[in-house]
Amino acid sequence: MGLSKENLKGLILALVSSAFIGTSFIIKKQGLRRAAVISGVRAGFGGYYYLLEPLWWVGMITMIVGEVANFVAYAFAPAVLVTPLGALSIIVSAVLADLILKEKLHNLGILGCIMCIAGSIIIVIHAPKEQPIESVLEIWNMATQPAFLAYVGSVIALVFILVFHFAPRCGHTNVLIFTGICSLMGSLSVMSVKAVGTSLKLTFEGKNQLIYPETWFFMLVVAICVVLQMNYLNKALDTFNTAIVSPIYYTMFTTLTILASVIMFKDWDGQSGGSIMSEICGFVVVLSGTVMLHATKDFERSPSFRSGAPSSPSSLSARLYPGNGEVLLKQDEENVSPPEGMCSRRQELY
Amino acid sequence: MGLSKENLKGLILALVSSAFIGTSFIIKKQGLRRAAVISGVRAGFGGYYYLLEPLWWVGMITMIVGEVANFVAYAFAPAVLVTPLGALSIIVSAVLADLILKEKLHNLGILGCIMCIAGSIIIVIHAPKEQPIESVLEIWNMATQPAFLAYVGSVIALVFILVFHFAPRCGHTNVLIFTGICSLMGSLSVMSVKAVGTSLKLTFEGKNQLIYPETWFFMLVVAICVVLQMNYLNKALDTFNTAIVSPIYYTMFTTLTILASVIMFKDWDGQSGGSIMSEICGFVVVLSGTVMLHATKDFERSPSFRSGAPSSPSSLSARLYPGNGEVLLKQDEENVSPPEGMCSRRQELY
Repeated sequence: MGLSKENLKGLILALVSSAFIGTSFIIKKQGLRRAAVISGVRAGFGGYYYLLEPLWWVGMITMIVGEVANFVAYAFAPAVLVTPLGALSIIVSAVLADLILKEKLHNLGILGCIMCIAGSIIIVIHAPKEQPIESVLEIWNMATQPAFLAYVGSVIALVFILVFHFAPRCGHTNVLIFTGICSLMGSLSVMSVKAVGTSLKLTFEGKNQLIYPETWFFMLVVAICVVLQMNYLNKALDTFNTAIVSPIYYTMFTTLTILASVIMFKDWDGQSGGSIMSEICGFVVVLSGTVMLHATKDFERSPSFRSGAPSSPSSLSARLYPGNGEVLLKQDEENVSPPEGMCSRRQELY
Repeated sequence: MGLSKENLKGLILALVSSAFIGTSFIIKKQGLRRAAVISGVRAGFGGYYYLLEPLWWVGMITMIVGEVANFVAYAFAPAVLVTPLGALSIIVSAVLADLILKEKLHNLGILGCIMCIAGSIIIVIHAPKEQPIESVLEIWNMATQPAFLAYVGSVIALVFILVFHFAPRCGHTNVLIFTGICSLMGSLSVMSVKAVGTSLKLTFEGKNQLIYPETWFFMLVVAICVVLQMNYLNKALDTFNTAIVSPIYYTMFTTLTILASVIMFKDWDGQSGGSIMSEICGFVVVLSGTVMLHATKDFERSPSFRSGAPSSPSSLSARLYPGNGEVLLKQDEENVSPPEGMCSRRQELY
């Protein structure tokens, strides 16, 4: 249990973040339901009375608080620890949906929750210690080391190939194209979010980092990556079913983020083979739990699995960084979601 | 990765054992199928031509080799390591059934396999080092320490209550009664198997342990526990569906065995909190994987879960120490199994 004080802060922030984000989906959905009852017009059929519903706004604020906590967590703990724990918001959401919305969890869904928790505990136990960072210039040095530049170069090249070659040809038939672009950009944006978060943390501690152009450069990278990510996540969700997109996106995004963090921050350098192996196993377990929760969420309704064929997405709102609980809410979402093309498919940034 | 040389031997033996046992079910089933084709009489309808089928005997021998390897593994590595790895035979059996018998594995079944493997790796990484034992008298001292005597006392008391109070009243309606008796006795028999195995190992190394009455006492305990276990496992399988009995038995048996081993051999004494926690999580993951494999094994055929209602068991043969792969073989087992009441429900001992 080598949790440093900083790691512990990051861990608590990540857990709080998951709790808030998981809860926010439930509150928002309750708000939407209530708005539909009061107005008699369901949001999916053109109404946006939900904007007058305080509960919906409470949900929105809960989510923003959760996203901010997640952002701050990256300033304290390694991405290898924070990113996989995003899956816990799924559990919070699934359990609350069962308790409050009476959307009964399947037995295998409960097993999925247990696995996400067991995997998360293993990851937390073996998380690497974060080296203390004194200045944004240290992060800059890590970001410009040859190994990480090679990673960034490959990511950009892959994104270009996906955007200009594959997206026009098979973007609407192969779910991996759009989600791949999002995940690749996502790994870069988490790294720059970590840089910006650490800079702000240091600035608040009295060591002003805003005087360095590097800080502003990282902010620019965050902005570019986030816009690209948002754009292609929208496309993915518009083209494919949320139940298909979410686990694939979570898997690819988390894997690439861990890879980027291991290259840039050398998270695994001081660790024993056993610890690294345990972390990877813990991550595989969390992934399996996530996939299982998604696969079994509609088991009561349809006995067979939902097909991977394109369908109208039912996403109420999608998070740029996945592990969101929203996808677990059952299909009547489709009837209470805001009107397509107006303010639907809003993206919360972190 | 603190695997000692002895632990490594035990680990390899446990893996070999799982491979042999998992394979044996497939070979035996092929033998039964072939016997049914040749004779025109299916074993389930009264034929026992399968005894003339060499393939069936090959399967039987494969299983015995596997069981012996499992027995020897206990002499080298702690029960905390050997027992949960029994789940790997399920994977071997499921994968071979998919490849050879063309009993297609469900996607969630594959996930279950991945989880069993990930959980096993975590358990292996964090397995406690086995203290070298020089004489059966050391084991005797461990077995007669107050904490372990208290455990044995509680187990015997519980077994008595279950056998004389609950079994006549609700043994045929509550699956936990018979499986509970088996699991409680099972934890004692593994401990005595470990004592006997270690004694034999020492004897082969030249330090004769057969001169001590303690060795013979442990052998007597093995015999008594095994007979009781066999008897009640038969009753459980005769009363309830294998798909219900197996995961419950595996869970209770493995948990109680680990508990007994931790009390008797003080497996966790030299270990950090993180290692113990990782082991427990790894064990939970293996359990979840096992449950999932069982829950999804009939998904292609019947969309809903199989009910827990009593039904005629389809077990070709049941192992006393669970984690067997056999329960994964699909239902046409019922048609090719040996005749009920004649030589069905044979029990392999280890």
